[in-house]
Amino acid sequence: MRATVIHAPHDIRVEEVPDAAIQRPEDAVVRVLRACICGSDLWAYRGEAQRQPGQRIGHEFLGVVEETGSAVSGLKAGDLVVAPFMWSDGTCDYCSEGLYTSCVHGGFWGSVGFDGGQGEAVRVPHADGTLVKLPAAAASDDHLLTGLLALSDVMGTGHHAALGAGVRAGSTVAVVGDGAVGLCGVLAAKRLGAERIIALGRHSARTDIAKLFGATDVVAERGEAAEAAVRELTGGQGAHAVIEAVGTEQSMRTAVNITRDGGAIGYVGVPHGSGTGLDLGVMFDRNISLRGGVAPVRAYIPELLEDVLSGAIDPAPVFDRAVSLDEVPDGYRAMDDRSALKVLIKP
Amino acid sequence: MRATVIHAPHDIRVEEVPDAAIQRPEDAVVRVLRACICGSDLWAYRGEAQRQPGQRIGHEFLGVVEETGSAVSGLKAGDLVVAPFMWSDGTCDYCSEGLYTSCVHGGFWGSVGFDGGQGEAVRVPHADGTLVKLPAAAASDDHLLTGLLALSDVMGTGHHAALGAGVRAGSTVAVVGDGAVGLCGVLAAKRLGAERIIALGRHSARTDIAKLFGATDVVAERGEAAEAAVRELTGGQGAHAVIEAVGTEQSMRTAVNITRDGGAIGYVGVPHGSGTGLDLGVMFDRNISLRGGVAPVRAYIPELLEDVLSGAIDPAPVFDRAVSLDEVPDGYRAMDDRSALKVLIKP
Repeated sequence: MRATVIHAPHDIRVEEVPDAAIQRPEDAVVRVLRACICGSDLWAYRGEAQRQPGQRIGHEFLGVVEETGSAVSGLKAGDLVVAPFMWSDGTCDYCSEGLYTSCVHGGFWGSVGFDGGQGEAVRVPHADGTLVKLPAAAASDDHLLTGLLALSDVMGTGHHAALGAGVRAGSTVAVVGDGAVGLCGVLAAKRLGAERIIALGRHSARTDIAKLFGATDVVAERGEAAEAAVRELTGGQGAHAVIEAVGTEQSMRTAVNITRDGGAIGYVGVPHGSGTGLDLGVMFDRNISLRGGVAPVRAYIPELLEDVLSGAIDPAPVFDRAVSLDEVPDGYRAMDDRSALKVLIKP
Repeated sequence: MRATVIHAPHDIRVEEVPDAAIQRPEDAVVRVLRACICGSDLWAYRGEAQRQPGQRIGHEFLGVVEETGSAVSGLKAGDLVVAPFMWSDGTCDYCSEGLYTSCVHGGFWGSVGFDGGQGEAVRVPHADGTLVKLPAAAASDDHLLTGLLALSDVMGTGHHAALGAGVRAGSTVAVVGDGAVGLCGVLAAKRLGAERIIALGRHSARTDIAKLFGATDVVAERGEAAEAAVRELTGGQGAHAVIEAVGTEQSMRTAVNITRDGGAIGYVGVPHGSGTGLDLGVMFDRNISLRGGVAPVRAYIPELLEDVLSGAIDPAPVFDRAVSLDEVPDGYRAMDDRSALKVLIKP
């Protein structure tokens, strides 16, 4: 089969690789219908996260079950399924509590020896615990399929950030980061009943989606000017709930400085310097909480799925470009130079 | 009147100062019956927190109202009262939400131009919003008075840490820090229904109090050995709720490393390097939350007072030495060399 392989920073290729195949009784093989490129894939693409040459890549996909191992009981060939960005057994202590990302048998797509999502098919370990079935009819609805793909990562991650930030009905929320996760954070905050949602971003193509998703205000300034603008919008106090969806020192510094005393930062940007942006002295004096981390999206898929199916939320607009599998390297370049927000892959 | 003055690191003197007096209509003057020395006073004593030469010091006291300003309506001369470690107006947005430490008119005892608690009397700004009345009968109960004094800081701060750590009925809690705040954290965790409380500490005089307060296990090791011991006690997982009551790089590092995935650190140790001990990458991967900061103890006094009066909790044992006002410099030396845990002052 063909799949995306990362050989070195900026060297992404689509190549012939061994076919995905059942290796253990808990496995399933999923033929990929839709995959995509994540902002976090860019850390590897840019060489800021280490990868072994030849590792596979991509952690968001949905598709059709092609084959199941002998121990798989909840899935069968032909089922339309979506995969969260990590696999998990669904039964350990952590999974039982909904913290699927800490599963004792969990792992990441594209780890050495495992298939990535940006390919024709994927071997899925612990298929029963990992995959979530989708209505078969969705397979023929291109727009719906795109929205459902967001459940594999960005929508659930935005939801995790909103929960971490303590968003509830009536909240004032600020969102740092205008990538797909930040935008899904806006959508998640709106879904949780936020009254005011301030999106920080300079690119109108992105802030227009933020507005579509429920942002009531857009702050185009950066750094201290952005902080001043958010304070101005919030009676000088800052936002009670702040979503940090970037992971850099600057983004975390901004997040801390726009959080209202007693408020919380829900952080989901993979830390790349953000620890340095965390001024614990300021957070201490102002009782600012920090909650978040790698999102256990598997826990959120059922409730978010319901809302995507009903049309209550539609995360599809975060995908602003579609490519074939062979065009995946172009997709990386487009996301790297920010000419694309999030690239959909149709293998 | 006489009061404690800090002239330079390690230069604490008890001197004649201007009498505490009403300056604004919202003021009260409180004659101090009991005060004490806080672990956080040692940061100033050691020169690690800056003070102007001649500043007053001490932020924990209870006493009798001697005089009230014309705008004070809830207090009268003769009332027995306890003061939280900051004053607050009781009416601003933040106070209304219980976040008294962010009061727009709030301040710290011993700030330049203000009395400290370690003296004969204190001018209390915003007396109505700040002071909490105690039953008059307590004035003649020496042990009870000592327990009530803990409400001015350490008991409320321990409670804040326990709330931040998410302690609830059945929780497994670990407490980093064997000072008075850490020990009150043990007591607060027990009060909130924690099932297992692991106290980290090497000094039996302190760990004995921890056991008295409800600790079920004591870990005497430090650093990585302490982390291993806590993991051993918790089936390899760590504690769901961790109280960080020190504020150093090492204490925060320990706190992060003994927190169970998905758990929370309630931090109340004034940050002196603890930001550096916070490994955001580890916290992200394991979904560890950080909540806490300067404790709004004014919010907690009513409920904790009830439990101290009923005998349900008794924080008095954290005071292991009593001095007169003139002996306060000896008290600082004793706490600095850790020969005393917490020094009570009877002016």
